[in-house]
Amino acid sequence: MTELISVAQAEALVAEHMPSFGSESVPLAQAAGRILRQAVHAERDQPPFDRVMMDGIAIRWQEVLPLDFALAGVQLAGMAMQTLASGGACLEVTTGAILPAGCDCVIPIEHLQREGDRYRTVEGYQPARGQFIHSRGSDCVAGELLLEPGAIIGAPEIALLAANGFAHVDVARIPSIAIVSTGDELVDVDSPLGEGQIRRSNDIAVGTALQLRGLARLTFEHVTDDEAATRATLTRVLAAHDVVILSGGVSMGQRDYVPTALEALGARRVFHRIAQKPGKPMWFGVGPDAQVIFGLPGNPVSALVCAIRYVCPALLSAMGLSHARPETVCLAAAMDTHAMLCSFVPAHVHTDLQGLAMAHPVPSRTSGDFSSLPRTHGVVQLPPGLGPVPAGTAVEFYRW
Amino acid sequence: MTELISVAQAEALVAEHMPSFGSESVPLAQAAGRILRQAVHAERDQPPFDRVMMDGIAIRWQEVLPLDFALAGVQLAGMAMQTLASGGACLEVTTGAILPAGCDCVIPIEHLQREGDRYRTVEGYQPARGQFIHSRGSDCVAGELLLEPGAIIGAPEIALLAANGFAHVDVARIPSIAIVSTGDELVDVDSPLGEGQIRRSNDIAVGTALQLRGLARLTFEHVTDDEAATRATLTRVLAAHDVVILSGGVSMGQRDYVPTALEALGARRVFHRIAQKPGKPMWFGVGPDAQVIFGLPGNPVSALVCAIRYVCPALLSAMGLSHARPETVCLAAAMDTHAMLCSFVPAHVHTDLQGLAMAHPVPSRTSGDFSSLPRTHGVVQLPPGLGPVPAGTAVEFYRW
Repeated sequence: MTELISVAQAEALVAEHMPSFGSESVPLAQAAGRILRQAVHAERDQPPFDRVMMDGIAIRWQEVLPLDFALAGVQLAGMAMQTLASGGACLEVTTGAILPAGCDCVIPIEHLQREGDRYRTVEGYQPARGQFIHSRGSDCVAGELLLEPGAIIGAPEIALLAANGFAHVDVARIPSIAIVSTGDELVDVDSPLGEGQIRRSNDIAVGTALQLRGLARLTFEHVTDDEAATRATLTRVLAAHDVVILSGGVSMGQRDYVPTALEALGARRVFHRIAQKPGKPMWFGVGPDAQVIFGLPGNPVSALVCAIRYVCPALLSAMGLSHARPETVCLAAAMDTHAMLCSFVPAHVHTDLQGLAMAHPVPSRTSGDFSSLPRTHGVVQLPPGLGPVPAGTAVEFYRW
Repeated sequence: MTELISVAQAEALVAEHMPSFGSESVPLAQAAGRILRQAVHAERDQPPFDRVMMDGIAIRWQEVLPLDFALAGVQLAGMAMQTLASGGACLEVTTGAILPAGCDCVIPIEHLQREGDRYRTVEGYQPARGQFIHSRGSDCVAGELLLEPGAIIGAPEIALLAANGFAHVDVARIPSIAIVSTGDELVDVDSPLGEGQIRRSNDIAVGTALQLRGLARLTFEHVTDDEAATRATLTRVLAAHDVVILSGGVSMGQRDYVPTALEALGARRVFHRIAQKPGKPMWFGVGPDAQVIFGLPGNPVSALVCAIRYVCPALLSAMGLSHARPETVCLAAAMDTHAMLCSFVPAHVHTDLQGLAMAHPVPSRTSGDFSSLPRTHGVVQLPPGLGPVPAGTAVEFYRW
């Protein structure tokens, strides 16, 4: 039996053995949700010209304003720059247009009355010099750093990429991941159930956790509890994937063929068993071509806890995601800690009226019980050996 | 000019005019992230049989235990139920197996030594009656309600669906959405820029906000500032979509053809202009075949604020998503409120060491400034007329 290592040691060892999965260039329309892998600088000043901010007229400001302005032309959004020749005249302008040469003030249409070819301001209206002009370069100047590598590309990021001419963008390549379930007792979701059999669910649950984090290059395999079959399947998936995730077959039993099959194929065990509950039997290693291999326990809650605590953060971090700090929540109830093992306890989290994230523990009835998990949002991490911890204690939280 | 309505009135009017977009049955492998539209009951007891929780041997418990047990057979996971005939014998068992008939105790392999055809317990080991047995029905019983409609299908939900035989599942149909940008000044991301032109970015930014919430049935169109072209495009997109989102063309200008074109096509205006900043010019209406139509302002920050404040929550709620309560955060700095308008201020949100979500406002330099948005996570909503609000005030928060 191997030594138990701590959660922090397991996390560090996984990170240490993670490859970079590289980057790829994708069309902007496919970049949503991806991890940015390049710096983005401003293509030009923003706005690129003194920009009209309201529909109305552009004029040359004077201390004492004329009562009306002769309409001398139009400057619509998208048009090349027009010029206002006379100080007593005006140009019609629309939002987004270049401010015409010779103008330094925009009067919105709400404050104007049109009379034939002239615009008259409503009585008592006093515009300010420079009003409703979004000055060239006031948001950013050409060359300014707008985005750093490591961000997830959401709506604000994609707006900047589009506005600055990035038709393609470098993003983290998504590693190809095989999820291999093991166990003679497991049948497909649509198969008849024999005596002693249950339906396969860990593989798709772990796959969903990955997919909802953008890790969607997934293939699924199943092997029975047979040494030769286990070895043949592992050979095949190791040849074709960056990451192999195994569900089950990593406990201490004589028929847990996964660790021995992996080692026979040239995979190197980095650790086996973590001082935690659930999830103690987790196995982690590196394949002959630097593939990373996660052996998750077969218990549904354990498999999911190990997937969200180790697999997902490590992959996203290796892909270059920055700021992947765990969430902090506040315990809504006092809890006991285990003397030797780090506990992961399912919890319902809600934000109270002050903005405080309160975690209500929903302990599983047994370590195999996943029927209560949908009432929860993830697990709180309770380090070992703290004795009883009071309500109000801040703890790390990992979302499903 | 139409009356300004409040944010709460706008939200209620949008909700009131939203259709149900129906449901559809999808294979389980495509259900991740979708909104569940059916109740899910347990197919059978969980566990479906008294289930062995450890690899080892199963025995019949006795007050005074024999020193060793004759091996009488095996009960592997997936096998039909075996029977232990003699009280002094044992069956080898693996995790997940049915507890053999005649047994009421499992001894893990760690506490055993094998000697030929016998298993001997390590010295001083005292098992408890019933240990390491996960009793039939202890997690849930057949017919028990496991999932209610309205949940987003994440890892725990998909595990239960798979375990209970749902090869297909009823989920909310995703409405088909057209995003139509307007404006002569706008060019494609990969086009050369003429004088007075800028690149189109609002459409893809709004599309990204939708897509990252699972609203991914999107088509994009662009129309120039031309009344006939606007009308032709709107006719076409209204015929083919449940939802039409317009970016720009809804201000007060003479060349804002969108509201008049929509009304000419039989669309009914529900409201135009909300007492908020930014986003005041927003238009909302209903098409001739009950399509919902959102006219977002052309300003990048305004368009995105209206998309995340009105469009996304309304669509998700109409699709049946439950618990779509806004987030609450705590202001990290004192802020002023506007006398008449609800302010939406971009903010960086981080969770402090106690689990409290602190919002640091990052005001835009101008209302057209989106270059600073990537440093923020969304907008805080500051109701009008509160005067200065102190740091520590709890406010609603809407994520990008």
